Formats: sequence, structure tokens, C-alpha cells
Amino acid sequence: MACLPRHPAFQRVSVGIFFLALWRVGVGDKVLMFPLDGSHWLSVKDVAKGLSARGEIVVLAPEVNLLVEESKYYSRKIFPVPYDEEELTNLLCSFGNSMFTERSYLMTPLIEYRHNMDGINMWFINCQNILKDHATLNFLKESKFDVVFTDPIIPCVLAEYLGLPSVYFFRGFLCSLEHMFSRSPSPVFYVPRCYTSFSDQMSFPQRMVNFLVHLLEPPLFSCVYSKFEDLASDVLKRDVHLPTLYQKGSVLLLRYDFVFDYPRPVMPNMVFIGGIHCKNRKDLPQEFEAYINASGEHGIVVFSLGSMVSEIPEKKAMDIADALGKIPQTVLWRYTGTRPSNLANNTILVKWLPQNDLLGHPKTRAFITHSGSHGIYEGICNGVPMVMMPLFGDQMDNAKRMETRGAGVTLNVLEMTSADLENALKAVINDKSYKENIMRLSSLHKDRPVEPLDLAVFWVEFVMRHKGAPHLRPAAHDLTWYQYHSLDVIGFLLAVVLTLAFVTFKCCAFGFRKCFGKQGRVKKAHKSKAH
Amino acid sequence: MACLPRHPAFQRVSVGIFFLALWRVGVGDKVLMFPLDGSHWLSVKDVAKGLSARGEIVVLAPEVNLLVEESKYYSRKIFPVPYDEEELTNLLCSFGNSMFTERSYLMTPLIEYRHNMDGINMWFINCQNILKDHATLNFLKESKFDVVFTDPIIPCVLAEYLGLPSVYFFRGFLCSLEHMFSRSPSPVFYVPRCYTSFSDQMSFPQRMVNFLVHLLEPPLFSCVYSKFEDLASDVLKRDVHLPTLYQKGSVLLLRYDFVFDYPRPVMPNMVFIGGIHCKNRKDLPQEFEAYINASGEHGIVVFSLGSMVSEIPEKKAMDIADALGKIPQTVLWRYTGTRPSNLANNTILVKWLPQNDLLGHPKTRAFITHSGSHGIYEGICNGVPMVMMPLFGDQMDNAKRMETRGAGVTLNVLEMTSADLENALKAVINDKSYKENIMRLSSLHKDRPVEPLDLAVFWVEFVMRHKGAPHLRPAAHDLTWYQYHSLDVIGFLLAVVLTLAFVTFKCCAFGFRKCFGKQGRVKKAHKSKAH
Repeated sequence: MACLPRHPAFQRVSVGIFFLALWRVGVGDKVLMFPLDGSHWLSVKDVAKGLSARGEIVVLAPEVNLLVEESKYYSRKIFPVPYDEEELTNLLCSFGNSMFTERSYLMTPLIEYRHNMDGINMWFINCQNILKDHATLNFLKESKFDVVFTDPIIPCVLAEYLGLPSVYFFRGFLCSLEHMFSRSPSPVFYVPRCYTSFSDQMSFPQRMVNFLVHLLEPPLFSCVYSKFEDLASDVLKRDVHLPTLYQKGSVLLLRYDFVFDYPRPVMPNMVFIGGIHCKNRKDLPQEFEAYINASGEHGIVVFSLGSMVSEIPEKKAMDIADALGKIPQTVLWRYTGTRPSNLANNTILVKWLPQNDLLGHPKTRAFITHSGSHGIYEGICNGVPMVMMPLFGDQMDNAKRMETRGAGVTLNVLEMTSADLENALKAVINDKSYKENIMRLSSLHKDRPVEPLDLAVFWVEFVMRHKGAPHLRPAAHDLTWYQYHSLDVIGFLLAVVLTLAFVTFKCCAFGFRKCFGKQGRVKKAHKSKAH
Repeated sequence: MACLPRHPAFQRVSVGIFFLALWRVGVGDKVLMFPLDGSHWLSVKDVAKGLSARGEIVVLAPEVNLLVEESKYYSRKIFPVPYDEEELTNLLCSFGNSMFTERSYLMTPLIEYRHNMDGINMWFINCQNILKDHATLNFLKESKFDVVFTDPIIPCVLAEYLGLPSVYFFRGFLCSLEHMFSRSPSPVFYVPRCYTSFSDQMSFPQRMVNFLVHLLEPPLFSCVYSKFEDLASDVLKRDVHLPTLYQKGSVLLLRYDFVFDYPRPVMPNMVFIGGIHCKNRKDLPQEFEAYINASGEHGIVVFSLGSMVSEIPEKKAMDIADALGKIPQTVLWRYTGTRPSNLANNTILVKWLPQNDLLGHPKTRAFITHSGSHGIYEGICNGVPMVMMPLFGDQMDNAKRMETRGAGVTLNVLEMTSADLENALKAVINDKSYKENIMRLSSLHKDRPVEPLDLAVFWVEFVMRHKGAPHLRPAAHDLTWYQYHSLDVIGFLLAVVLTLAFVTFKCCAFGFRKCFGKQGRVKKAHKSKAH
């Protein structure tokens, strides 16, 4: 239990409050939210709050969860799960610790795959428990919702089961598969694939690797999601092909934009709401205000590796502490592990920190982050240059995006030395270009006709008003794979051209023989006789 | 002169007022607008008005023009042209009349090509007169604009000449070439090509024709715009390739959306502002209010074939008048030609009509239109079912889009009979499905987080604030054609696979010979001896 992320909302919910606040059911529009837990929930919570002004929100949450606490903005429908708080804690601990396991280059993909599968298996268990639990299903059916708002990374097919339109809210799938199932072209020559850490400017070998990774995406998807397909087929009583099912998503609210990600083709039902959670700023707690005031002219550095990492191996923690001690700034480090013995006076360990509020303070000079998408956007919104230590998932690719824009420095957390971290910190703090670049990104990001939260709320309400958004559905979804690639047309035209070429050749050959054939034979005959 | 569209603003501007209202130059942001004249100008005018609140607008207009009148919202910079009002009138008359020329099916593309070239040649003359006129060029250079706002269908390379970012405002190029030069994929299997009048649901033969038309697009573009390239090369003193130059457009404000057009992949710098001009509603003039009041319970039908058509051949005009006389509604027909002798009492000929304001009246039952993009959007905004008689350009494709959505009926203006028009009118008025469908489209179209005009103004100001929108520029623009199609990567991988296959085959063959070769030869030798 020592390495449990200590968030106050971490809880087992008693059966008695399963239906808490459901008294509002039956009035106005009704949204069923089925979000991911953990940091993913943080921005969904803002949308729930935004939507609650004009309708009723029910959040479907597992009995044992991390952050989905009670709220006046939504009611919770809790479903039972077969694991307890301790098991979840152990899973998270082992997940967090495994980030720092030394591994060979070749083992990295396998470890990453296992990391993803750990999360996906837990979501699968959750799905199974919803879809096999008659009480939950009856509640969902009887509640007459208007829309299902969900993260499609957990394909629980609730919208299909309930016959409702759906809105997908997410950072994107593994390997940008949201583009694959939306039939939004992903040109392999400049759209870098996940886990490659390539930018959109690739060398020839990089483009080759990118091409090969792109070929692996569909089988990877099948591997990861095959058991969800079986579960969905069982529940919907028909064969389910998940990518086809995903095409039914009315609107995709994607938690990025093109200040962060590289510009690429998109579909009309994709709405970009990167930085949706940034505006949710509060006053700093007194304790943190005091740290900042005491930091003097050098200001502070904010350091957090996210809620998944609580313990760092001693040697690594000491290396980090050593580097932090060599900068003049005060460092606020969110760390729940054992205090490194060499921690310098300028470094303050805290169990929790108000990250976005601290980053918004004018005295914050740098942000040391694991480059999760929420953290990256907080860095962009507040214009704070970053030292990035990506750990898993999309974090390597997120870091690459910021690095190519000159807004931060990426370090390999397993290989970096104390000097690497010290140099990276001094660079982003003292080299003005980092600050200028992140400020430029910040000003581009914040210059928008509608705030991302308003946009998200608008589109959920749109889908409820119009019972979907069928006018944004491309006809590509109605085509077979060979029609989609125009193979029938190209094949037919090729056959016509080849037939024409063959007939022309035969005609010419026949004509040639008619004109010169006899003469040729006669000459040959003459020659033969001459012999 | 009889068939001249009688708009009050049609004028030759005296040299004395060339610099009228330029007193505002030098204050705040400065926008150079170089729009298309005619109906295209109508929505640009709204943007000029919107932008004028926060900056200074200069509209570059030819000395002889149709609609670019003076205004308190912008100043005009007039440039000289080598044609006079009469020549322009004659051109428009002959253009308008040619719509009704009987033609064979095979001649249609040629006539359409000539129509387009007539317009493009006139725009070329305008461009030539700007780029060869030192006074105009000096004025443009000295004015220190912040952005060039233009319709790229006239590639006058002013932004490149002045070294400024540009915003493109347009309905789209011939054959959606805006997607080609933006490197926005246009999947040929469900994105219908222009002039095909196909929907996004194509049969096999249609997909084949679509594929072939798609192959013709780049050479067509070269044909149409080659002289602009020569002119641009001459002015910019370097070789100019227009599609590459177009990639520099910071933001594309496209006058359509996906209520009207079929959903398809788009790029992040494409902003959809279809229906931008619809909100600009005024009270009806007394004369029209009186017509409506007198129409009784049956209401009115609005009929206009646009400003380009003033005269219709007598026989055709009589057929139309005959059909109009057979419906109980009052028909308001904008027509400047000779009054058909059989005109019924319910049909009122007017030289001009406030189209959008009339369509917005609840007693309007149907709209007979040539299906220009402005008219179509007025039909959508006001929820009026349409009888469409497309004449040229994008009008056939526009009509197809409305027809497939059940919001109107398309007629071939050359082939239709009086009965066809009568039946079409009765259908859209009496069959409730047309009204329901257009009302559904209208409600989808008007349900948006930002009004199109505000969006257009926002993006022009964005480009001025950030001196472009480089973060929305895809890396695809930096690739050669073979990199763009991944030909180098595919070629290399193919070579590797073939080499491996060849080496494997050779090794196997060698191994096989080693193992069985001697024995084989010995057996053969035995056999030979046996003979």
C-alpha cells in the first residue's frame, strides 16, 4: 500500500449509495457517461459539469475506482467489479514500478504491449461486469438516455446495446486507430506512427520503419481487442467487427489540436478540444503560495511524473535529487516514495500538487513531466518550457512533438544521468528560445473562436438534438474493402487496357504478316534453294 | 444592352475617386481584399463589413465592375482595365444566352470549358493589368498590408509579390482542386468529381467514370492556368508552379459545409463557412410585401436564374410561363427579358428581387433556382424546397447534392417541357417530404457553435495576429511526388523482398543440386548407357 497514489477520492463505494442523486432521472436530456478512470476522468468531469446545466448526467463507474467521486453535477451509477481496492492498488504499483525496469531495446515493445494489455484487461473485466449484470443493464435500459458519452478505448458497446447515438471523447487510440476506423486517410509518409517517436519530417529509413509499423497496426488492433469483439458479439447477438462498429460514433471529441499534434487529414466529425481542462484554474493553496514567495527571483520548477508513478528506484531518485539540487530554482516535486537521502534544500517533496495552478504562476520557470497529454497541455496553456521524461503509452510521441517545436527537452528516464537532467533543466530555463517557443505555441493554442469545453458541450448537445450527426458520416463506410481501394475499378480498367493492347498487337502482327509475310517466306525459300 | 443585368452598382469609376476613403490607411490592421466580382462579391462584402470594425479594408477592384460599389466599410483601390462597360455587358449577355444553346451530349464538356475560359480570360486580363501597372503595384507595396484576402480562382500572386500571408475565400476550384493542392486526400471511390453529377453513393460504372475524370483533373488545371503561371513567373522572377504556390495559403475559408456537400477528408486549415451571407436579412420592400399579402393561402414561389441570365429563348420562356400559370401560388420571377405572351395572372415579372428576404417569408412555398451556391444556401437557411435548373459550372453538382437529400427536384433546362416544370413545382409544394427534408437540413446547418461570418472574421484576424497559420501546414508540402506516394519506400522494400526471394531460391536450388544433383546425373548417365 506504500506506493498507492494518495488521492482522497480513491474509494470503494458502498452499495447503499449506488443510486445516489438519481432522483434527477427523467427530467430533460439525459447523458450516459462511461469514462476511463484515472487522469482521463479529469477532463470528462469538466464536460459533465458543462453539460449538467442543461440536462441530466449519469456517470457509470466501477465500484472500486480512483477519481470518479460524487458530485452535484452528475449522479453515479456504480457497477460491481470482482477486484478490491488492494488488488487495484497492487496493479497500479506494479505498473508504476515497471516503468523503471531496465530493459533491452528489443524487449521495449513487448514490455509496452504488456503495459497496455494490463490496462485493457482491467477495462475488459469492467465491461464484462456491466454487460453480464442484469441489474445494471436493466437500469440502463429503463433510464431512456439520449446519448452515450464514452472513451472508445473501452469498447463496451453500450450505445449499440441501448440503440443510442454516441460521442467519443478521447486522446486517440493506440496507433491513431481512430483515423483508421473513421476512414480518415493517414498518409504514412508524413503522419508518424505511434511508438516510433518520429516527427512529421522523416528521413528515408524512418519513413520505411513508419511504413512497416503502419502495416502492423490492424493486426495489433485485432490482437488487443479480439476478446472485446467476442463479448460484444455475445451481448448484441450478432457478429461484431469493432472497427465497423466504431464507425457509428456520431462525433469524435479528440483531446488534441494542431498546436500539439502534426497537421494531417481529418474527418468532418472530428472535433479538436486539446487543452479542454486547462481553464479550470483555482487559487493556489496557502502552502504552495508560501513556497513560491520564498523562491525569490529564481522562481520555481514543477516536477511530477503523474499519478501512476509513486516510487522511483533509489539510485534513480538520488540521481534526480542530485540534479535538482544544482539549479537555483525551488523545485516542487510530487513524490510519494522514500525521500532520497541526498535531497537538496531547494527541493520540496509533496504528496500532491495543484499542477495546472502552479504552472499558471508567473514565477514557474520549468515543468518536469512524464509528458502525459494532460500535463503537456497544461505546459502549453501556461507557456512553461518542459523537461520531458516519457514513461509509457503515447508519452514518447507527445514528448517528440514538443521537442520538435523547440518547447522542451526529452530525456530517457532509464538512461539519463544526473548531469543530463541538470543540463536539460538549465537549458530550458536559461535558453530564451524554449520560453519563446512555448509562448508562441501557447498564444496559437489559446487563440480560438470557441473554448474547447464549450465546443465539447455543444457537440454532445448537438448529437442529442439531432439524434446523431448522420450528415457527417462519409459514404466510405458503405464500401467494401476492395471498393474502398478502387481495386475493382483499377482491375477492370487494367483488363480493358491489356485486352486492347493485346488485340492491337495481334492485329498489327496479323497485318504485318499479311503485308510482309509471303515476301519474307518467298525470300527465305529462295535462300534455302540457293543453299 | 437589352440583356444587361440592371444592377444599380454597375459602373465605370471615374479616376477622381480611385483613392476614395483611403484616408484610413495606416491605422490598425490592414486587409487587402481582391475578390471576384458578380455574385461572389456578395458574401465577401459581408466579411469586409465584419472585419472593418477592427481594421482597415482596401478592396482592389477593376475600373469596370458589376457590384463592387463604394461603402463606408472599406475603401476601394481601382485598377485600370482595357475593356469598357459595353464590352463587359456583351460578354455577359453572350455568356447568359449560351446557356440555352441546344448542344449534343458530346459537345457539353467543350461548351462548359469555353464558359469557364471566358471568365478565366477576363480575370487574366485583370491580373495582367494589376501586375503590369506600376502605380497600382507601388500603391500595394507602400500600403503595408497585413494580409491578402482573395479568391484563388484568380491566381494573381499578390500575396507572394507583397510577401504577405493570405486567406483564400471561395466556393472551391474547378474539380475541387483546393483539395489537390492542399494535399487533402480525395478518395475517388466516394468523393464525386465535378461535372459528373454523381452523388457519394456511386455505382460501378459511375466510380469508373469518376476515376477517369479524376485522372483528367491535373492536366485540366494546367490547361486552364498555364498563362497565369507564365505571368506569375514573369512578375516574381522565378519559375512558378501554381499548385505549389497555393500551398502557401494560410487558411482556406470554404463557402460550403457538410449539410450541403458530402462528408470527406479535409485539412486542418480548411474552415467551412457555407451560408455565410444568409443572416444578412432586411425587411421586405413594400412592393414585395404587397405581392405576398395578395397571394392568399397558397403563398408564393420565388423564381430566379441568377444575375447572369436575363434573356431566355422565346419558346423556352413560354414553356416556363405556361407551367407557372398552372399552379395556384403567386410566382415572383426575376426576369429582364421580353415578357412571354402567355404569362398568366399569377406570375409577376420583376427586374430584381430581394431573394434571401423573400425566401425567409413563411408564405414562400418553393424556390426555382439555377442552383448557384449562394441561392442553394439561401434555400437551406430558409428551409424552402427547390426546383433546380442548373446552367453551368458547379450548379449541376450543387443540384445533385440537394436532390440526393430529398430537398428538391432537378430539371434539365434545355430538355424540360412545360409539364415537367409544372409537375416538379407541384411535387416540391405538395409532397411534404421535400419540406421536411429541407427543414431538417436547415436545422442542421443553423445549429453551429459559431456563425460562419464570425468564423471568417476570426480566421482573417488570426492570420494577421500570427502572420499566417504555419502550425496548420502539413509536412506533406515538403515532400517530392514520389515521397508523397511512398514510391521510394515501397520500391526499396520490394527490391529487398525480391532480392531475398531470389537469394533464397538460389540457395535452395544450390542445396538441392548438392543433395540430389550427383545422384540425378548418375541415374541419367546410367540410363544413357542402358540405351
